Amino acid sequence: MPRVSEDHRAARRSQILDGARRCFAEYGYEGATVRRLEEATGLSRGAIFHHFRDKEALFLALAEDDAQRMADTAAEQGLVQVMRDVLTHPERFDWLATRLEITRRLRTDADFRRRWAERSGELSAATGERLRRQKAAGRLRDDVTGDVLQDYLELVLDGLITRVAGGHDAGNLAEVLDLVEESVRKRD
Amino acid sequence: MPRVSEDHRAARRSQILDGARRCFAEYGYEGATVRRLEEATGLSRGAIFHHFRDKEALFLALAEDDAQRMADTAAEQGLVQVMRDVLTHPERFDWLATRLEITRRLRTDADFRRRWAERSGELSAATGERLRRQKAAGRLRDDVTGDVLQDYLELVLDGLITRVAGGHDAGNLAEVLDLVEESVRKRD
Repeated sequence: MPRVSEDHRAARRSQILDGARRCFAEYGYEGATVRRLEEATGLSRGAIFHHFRDKEALFLALAEDDAQRMADTAAEQGLVQVMRDVLTHPERFDWLATRLEITRRLRTDADFRRRWAERSGELSAATGERLRRQKAAGRLRDDVTGDVLQDYLELVLDGLITRVAGGHDAGNLAEVLDLVEESVRKRD
Repeated sequence: MPRVSEDHRAARRSQILDGARRCFAEYGYEGATVRRLEEATGLSRGAIFHHFRDKEALFLALAEDDAQRMADTAAEQGLVQVMRDVLTHPERFDWLATRLEITRRLRTDADFRRRWAERSGELSAATGERLRRQKAAGRLRDDVTGDVLQDYLELVLDGLITRVAGGHDAGNLAEVLDLVEESVRKRD
């Protein structure tokens, strides 16, 4: 494909994703109708679904965007830093409630679960890789396996997303994350 | 109200709640239409909405049931035991994904948030009360306030609900809960 149209394609794709993210954040997954997606992106349904097969594909592309961004942070600074970012910039995560809306489908729709796992796998992989490095460097507690530490951190991230998406007062959450970080570290 | 009709009323109410719980678990909040609620409860819409004002009231009554049951456990054995129960009997919590579906409304609908908080407040109160007793007995770490410990445990519960509702493999979660329990305890 020539360069110009590739650039155009990427820009258009990004325009659609930005609009869709706002639309999901405001109306939720069910409420983000085709008409509202057209309004939010400023594009026709023809243009939107030329780039994304359907609403589910749009949703999964957004989840993948998040996962990549979080994976970059997790690889460099760990999953607790990912959580601190969520806390510092909750507005970037306005659409997270949409992720919760589709939780039931993860349980009942095997194909969707597979597609979701493909897209969120990168964050898990980055987290696991960093945990192994930290462990090798002697920074993590060694009375618990790395898998348990990873499941623990991923569970805490899910809890944080639920709290932020529900508009809970951030209250003590910064201190809670200190506690979480400390609880995976090797004790002095 | 005479005793007999009070008994009848309680039985009917319980029949409606059982059916509604199954219906929400299977179809989700949006998918639990009035027709499906009729099928699941074996009662007419007239009978259902004689006892509960609307679908939201049904949903909040179920959340209150959960909160009371969890609060009883939390008061006696703590919030970590509540989590172990979720892990041991995930089928009792099939409808939890429905709780996640309505997360966005918690953020955007102040009246709903207030009604939700009224109903889930009991669990928080029971957890807080037990933490104070445990703290007084010298069983909890004392380098962190009780409020932080409570927020930490509630966040972990939210994360656990998200994992279970999403049908994640329970995998290491029992060991994760051991880690959580240990991380709030006073160290020997």
